[in-house]
Amino acid sequence: MSTVPLLSDEEVSAEALAVFNDIRAVRGTEYVNNFWRALAHDPALLAVTWARLKEVMAPGALDPLVKEMLYVAVSTANGCEYCVHSHTAAAKAKGMTPEIYGELLAVIGMAMQTNGLVTGLQVEVDEGFKA
Amino acid sequence: MSTVPLLSDEEVSAEALAVFNDIRAVRGTEYVNNFWRALAHDPALLAVTWARLKEVMAPGALDPLVKEMLYVAVSTANGCEYCVHSHTAAAKAKGMTPEIYGELLAVIGMAMQTNGLVTGLQVEVDEGFKA
Amino acid sequence: MSTVPLLSDEEVSAEALAVFNDIRAVRGTEYVNNFWRALAHDPALLAVTWARLKEVMAPGALDPLVKEMLYVAVSTANGCEYCVHSHTAAAKAKGMTPEIYGELLAVIGMAMQTNGLVTGLQVEVDEGFKA
Amino acid sequence: MSTVPLLSDEEVSAEALAVFNDIRAVRGTEYVNNFWRALAHDPALLAVTWARLKEVMAPGALDPLVKEMLYVAVSTANGCEYCVHSHTAAAKAKGMTPEIYGELLAVIGMAMQTNGLVTGLQVEVDEGFKA
Amino acid sequence: MSTVPLLSDEEVSAEALAVFNDIRAVRGTEYVNNFWRALAHDPALLAVTWARLKEVMAPGALDPLVKEMLYVAVSTANGCEYCVHSHTAAAKAKGMTPEIYGELLAVIGMAMQTNGLVTGLQVEVDEGFKA
Amino acid sequence: MSTVPLLSDEEVSAEALAVFNDIRAVRGTEYVNNFWRALAHDPALLAVTWARLKEVMAPGALDPLVKEMLYVAVSTANGCEYCVHSHTAAAKAKGMTPEIYGELLAVIGMAMQTNGLVTGLQVEVDEGFKA
Repeated sequence: MSTVPLLSDEEVSAEALAVFNDIRAVRGTEYVNNFWRALAHDPALLAVTWARLKEVMAPGALDPLVKEMLYVAVSTANGCEYCVHSHTAAAKAKGMTPEIYGELLAVIGMAMQTNGLVTGLQVEVDEGFKA
Repeated sequence: MSTVPLLSDEEVSAEALAVFNDIRAVRGTEYVNNFWRALAHDPALLAVTWARLKEVMAPGALDPLVKEMLYVAVSTANGCEYCVHSHTAAAKAKGMTPEIYGELLAVIGMAMQTNGLVTGLQVEVDEGFKA
Repeated sequence: MSTVPLLSDEEVSAEALAVFNDIRAVRGTEYVNNFWRALAHDPALLAVTWARLKEVMAPGALDPLVKEMLYVAVSTANGCEYCVHSHTAAAKAKGMTPEIYGELLAVIGMAMQTNGLVTGLQVEVDEGFKA
Repeated sequence: MSTVPLLSDEEVSAEALAVFNDIRAVRGTEYVNNFWRALAHDPALLAVTWARLKEVMAPGALDPLVKEMLYVAVSTANGCEYCVHSHTAAAKAKGMTPEIYGELLAVIGMAMQTNGLVTGLQVEVDEGFKA
Repeated sequence: MSTVPLLSDEEVSAEALAVFNDIRAVRGTEYVNNFWRALAHDPALLAVTWARLKEVMAPGALDPLVKEMLYVAVSTANGCEYCVHSHTAAAKAKGMTPEIYGELLAVIGMAMQTNGLVTGLQVEVDEGFKA
Repeated sequence: MSTVPLLSDEEVSAEALAVFNDIRAVRGTEYVNNFWRALAHDPALLAVTWARLKEVMAPGALDPLVKEMLYVAVSTANGCEYCVHSHTAAAKAKGMTPEIYGELLAVIGMAMQTNGLVTGLQVEVDEGFKA
């Protein structure tokens, strides 16, 4: 249960409702997920967060599925349960097959493992890796 | 400086040298980076780590550049300096342009940010996100 | 559910009960929260942890509300669900308004974001920042 | 050493230079720190990050020193060396005395400690802490 | 709830069932815990993970109880709820007494605390600690 | 370089010098490492931290080498460079052989890996693991 009540459309400010409606329009669904309903307690923070997320996750040099998988990778390393669930669901919606998902998990597991080995050994950075 | 001396080809066991030579063959370079030279103190751990890394990072349903970027994402969230450097260098070698790199950083930053907001708010997972 | 049963007043040792009663006296409430009831399995660890917490969180050069918010910030970055909830509740009890809470979340989110960007870029520390 | 060269005023784009100049104006100093010089490789990311940071860290319901200390707290938990240095320096510049700094460190240490105890014990959240 | 359904013996592939049966044989119990039932969606990842875990956690220079406690320590620092629970249960099954458990928690708490103090202070490594 | 100058015996307060001398007596060496010299800026924090560390790391139900390895495990997961170095050095001084060190690293790496897999899959805790 979140630290603040999740706000319904009826409970939010006009500024927050406008954000909800933009989320609906961009995503092509009536559903507004809990993160935004919690963030709606601070309409300005809601607005700036959504505006930036929309921009960052839009198609660009990286395609949206890759971006969702990167999001899952970061969220997993940070142990953010909600974020892992929401971005795994988003990745599936954008075409992540079971085979791709298995590779995503394998890379995350491998990276976590060598992060641990490297940090435990405190390996110094090779000169050749530096810019 | 690492917790163990980095081992040269002359100092490692035959088992470790065989791993070094496989790293060279797979990567098409004479250079063996510091991580493996530190890990060579435990030839069995070196061998199993390299064998698994080689398999996980090979082309599959995900292409090698995407895998390197996922590795950078996890390593950044975990704060592993060496891993960030080595996999950023690898990603560049596999075709990561400045434009792609900018988007990678933007997604990492965005994910870190919403990880913080979601965890601070302790948002409960939407039913629809569950398997 | 915790890894050990939460202990009631009737189940704890005399040493642990004395700690519970000091918690009640200091906080001016009969309620002893779950953390202490779990920790009561090890009365010595309970006693030393409470004694130190009482000292650290007391008014000093920093006021108690700021200390609670710092606690929330650390706990959020560490992904400690219980700690986020308990110290957010404590901060509200000590006067954190919705406006302050929004700014707290905004700073946490911003810090997480630039932590990610800086670590991804491996920026070297400016000479002028060093002591 | 960062993954990209730090850019001088002469090397950056016009858009990035405008950001540098705004940093100078807002902070009242000619010095532009390394983070921005690394980020300047992606002028759009630089601009949006600075614009948001300027807004989040401005005086509001929380005073700027408290915001800097919250930033230090998050950055410490995340292990971001650069961020700890830069925001500790900023906090000192905004009036953090040795006494305040000692209390800040004590709260961070305490929070880290109980984060570990709570997570190790997997204590369930008290009903009363929920919104 | 996991991002994939947990698979029963009837639902898994022959390769995955063979892993389940090896888990049963090695552990001397019919029970196969949820982690493996989730991982069974990718039989190759399941097989390699189990094979490696079996090897790493086997008696060696370190006894199995110490290995389980190290696992709890890492999992606690990473905030992995499932891992804390499963390896705490395993440690208890391998002889972890309440007294040992109290010391394990005390060391974890102490390490978290000084990790925070050291990182906050950015203490440079003593020359004598280097290999 | 730390955020505060490291203090010599000549520069610290009498209270801090008494702690330095107790560190010397307990450890049987004249050397006082950098952590304490940084912490000496706040003599009270120095004293309470050392008093607690001395108690926690003393022989008990767990032997001192196991405690040092647990400290390394937590510090590695938290990415604390100084702590990894100092406690790895301490573990070696207390008898950690290369073989034991290899197993320690292997367990850390394995735990990091399955922490990532479990968190990525969001596996729900088995009923049987709960207290």
